[in-house]
Amino acid sequence: MSDFRQKALDYHSKPVPGKISIELTKPAETVTDLALAYSPGVAEPVREIAADPDAAYKYTGKGNLVAVISNGTAILGLGNLGPLASKPVMEGKALLFKRFANIDSIDIEVKHTTTAEFINTVASIADTFGGINLEDIKAPECFEIEQELIKRCSIPVFHDDQHGTAIVTAAGMLNALEIQGKNISDATIVCLGAGAAATACMELLVKCGAKRERIYMLDRKGVIHTRREDLTSHKKLFANNTDKRTLEDALDCADVFVGVSGPNLLPPEALKLMAPNPVVFACSNPDPEIKPELAHQVRDDLIMATGRSDYPNQVNNVLCFPFIFRGALDVRASQINDEMKIAAVDAIRSIAKEPVSKEVLAASNIDSLSFGKDYIIPKPMDPRLLKRVARAVAQAAIDSGVASINELPLGYMQE
Amino acid sequence: MSDFRQKALDYHSKPVPGKISIELTKPAETVTDLALAYSPGVAEPVREIAADPDAAYKYTGKGNLVAVISNGTAILGLGNLGPLASKPVMEGKALLFKRFANIDSIDIEVKHTTTAEFINTVASIADTFGGINLEDIKAPECFEIEQELIKRCSIPVFHDDQHGTAIVTAAGMLNALEIQGKNISDATIVCLGAGAAATACMELLVKCGAKRERIYMLDRKGVIHTRREDLTSHKKLFANNTDKRTLEDALDCADVFVGVSGPNLLPPEALKLMAPNPVVFACSNPDPEIKPELAHQVRDDLIMATGRSDYPNQVNNVLCFPFIFRGALDVRASQINDEMKIAAVDAIRSIAKEPVSKEVLAASNIDSLSFGKDYIIPKPMDPRLLKRVARAVAQAAIDSGVASINELPLGYMQE
Repeated sequence: MSDFRQKALDYHSKPVPGKISIELTKPAETVTDLALAYSPGVAEPVREIAADPDAAYKYTGKGNLVAVISNGTAILGLGNLGPLASKPVMEGKALLFKRFANIDSIDIEVKHTTTAEFINTVASIADTFGGINLEDIKAPECFEIEQELIKRCSIPVFHDDQHGTAIVTAAGMLNALEIQGKNISDATIVCLGAGAAATACMELLVKCGAKRERIYMLDRKGVIHTRREDLTSHKKLFANNTDKRTLEDALDCADVFVGVSGPNLLPPEALKLMAPNPVVFACSNPDPEIKPELAHQVRDDLIMATGRSDYPNQVNNVLCFPFIFRGALDVRASQINDEMKIAAVDAIRSIAKEPVSKEVLAASNIDSLSFGKDYIIPKPMDPRLLKRVARAVAQAAIDSGVASINELPLGYMQE
Repeated sequence: MSDFRQKALDYHSKPVPGKISIELTKPAETVTDLALAYSPGVAEPVREIAADPDAAYKYTGKGNLVAVISNGTAILGLGNLGPLASKPVMEGKALLFKRFANIDSIDIEVKHTTTAEFINTVASIADTFGGINLEDIKAPECFEIEQELIKRCSIPVFHDDQHGTAIVTAAGMLNALEIQGKNISDATIVCLGAGAAATACMELLVKCGAKRERIYMLDRKGVIHTRREDLTSHKKLFANNTDKRTLEDALDCADVFVGVSGPNLLPPEALKLMAPNPVVFACSNPDPEIKPELAHQVRDDLIMATGRSDYPNQVNNVLCFPFIFRGALDVRASQINDEMKIAAVDAIRSIAKEPVSKEVLAASNIDSLSFGKDYIIPKPMDPRLLKRVARAVAQAAIDSGVASINELPLGYMQE
């Protein structure tokens, strides 16, 4: 067994199994404490909530509680291994919510039967929480699941594999294009992969200014074009009226490559076809579509990002999801809308352009960082993310009319 | 607003809303920590669990996690106020699980639609947890819900309002009868109330030796007898072939009164009809079927218990549910069976017969306690409950063949 594998298993099993626990936020030592916490005292908040459901935010943990929910049908890059096997990932997500944004988060694994039953189950328990983070649910079911739950729930429902990835990708992409002297509205974009993350990334880039007709999306059969008759509704949104068919056709003079597909699927020769000063996001994990060292050998004018922490420019969802939920919870937003997503993109972008503290450098094991080809997105350990992204998201929720609390409370980060 | 009411509301709202939070059990400070906790390290326990579902107990918090689940249809004595209003009670139960048995517990409130949908929802999420505590679900639906979930889940499912109440009642009752020089198998028992708690109490007393034909159960219409045609299946189990019709008929020469009904429903004159040295459990909360001071005025030969903490002999579920789950979780029992319930009864009984520590007296605000008419069941603050009840339950699970771990681990209490 490899050393890292053993370390990972030990981390999960010792000294106690798992990564999260429940703790008390109130004293529970004396008979008096217990009379307040449970019978008879607990009847008082019950009556308050029965009279006004909003009182649940005042007297229970609902407002700071996010469920991380999966059916285990698309666990990491490992596939459909079932709900129970997804539990370490969902607990890990809960750990990140707490670590980065002080959000109480609990994993819920749901048996996979039908899409309708999954939706019913989640909708039935949704009132327990202040928000729902959907995770590792395979496409195309994930689209219907998220859309239907957004309709049926009065709390934010967010499929992080789609939108978290899209937000961080968009932030890095817009910064990379700026450094390369390119404009998103002029850019030709090739997206290798047509799953949930791919379509969400392209949709958000369109909202940030990309032109749909300049996007070439490819699935296993090649370029998605208007004459294909095998397209799901989500792929149809990116069907291009074009004669391009292969990856090489698409990459010819393209400015941007986004890979959300599989290892080593971008041949070095194809990379040579791209326009000068290209941007290459090879996000397949753990093995990217092209290894950064190989890509840099092939051409020296590119900006490269991956999903890995051991190369520069890691596209990491943890830059977004804890903070977008922090902002949404703090103003009790009823949903996470496009305005809030774009506010998150802008806030993440802006942090990368400012000097980095010594503490962040030390925590990231790096000597120096300054905005440029090797630093287009912030590091996960940057504490500015919490304040800046959460605040921007909260303000966008207020401005777009989906917040229940219409001013930013001083203690809004619950630090 | 009364002082206590304000204190209870403040306790629930300050300094943070609610009573429980999520905390991390593993370090999450460095980039290395995060690589173990989430991607890529988390893939290792995922693979282990995909290969062997039991590995979830080793690598996740499942084995020490109990869901407290309600649909809010019978909240305390307050009635059907809906799932959201039940949240403070469910969080309170989670607090008690942690406080008394170091069990991680999270509340889940489920929208009330049909019984079948409630069952489907809970069964769909059950694998997330190591056990399920059902709470505040109204009769008769609670019977079908519990029975069906026991069938469909491989983890313990326990409706505390039924069985927790029954176990503590049986423990106190058997001790009280012993003090009064009576035998459960000879006792005539009157049970006022025919809901979930009442039928569960009587079923467990039967398993402890009571004779079904000497039990008179009464609902709103009076004694439940074999000639009535309005009985649900659960009431039918206690239909008595008798001419008794009223509470007074039933109480004539009865040895035991158990009230699980409503305030002041036992008239002092009726109490006089009971046999010498009777046992009166007036468990309606907060106002018992008869006030203890009034009962003692009427006759001086009784033993009296209530659901209140401000009188002697409080029948309090917290004497049982944290410890029966602790025992069940520690040997990974697939269910909580009758053998385990009776083991809990015996363990609780035995503790009351032994000297009480100074610490317990101080925590209970009492000068002295010794086994007798005013001390038939232990105090909630007694630390012996954890070790003794959990151990007895775990041993019973092993002996009855429902445990997956067939020896008591040294660290079984996870203290």
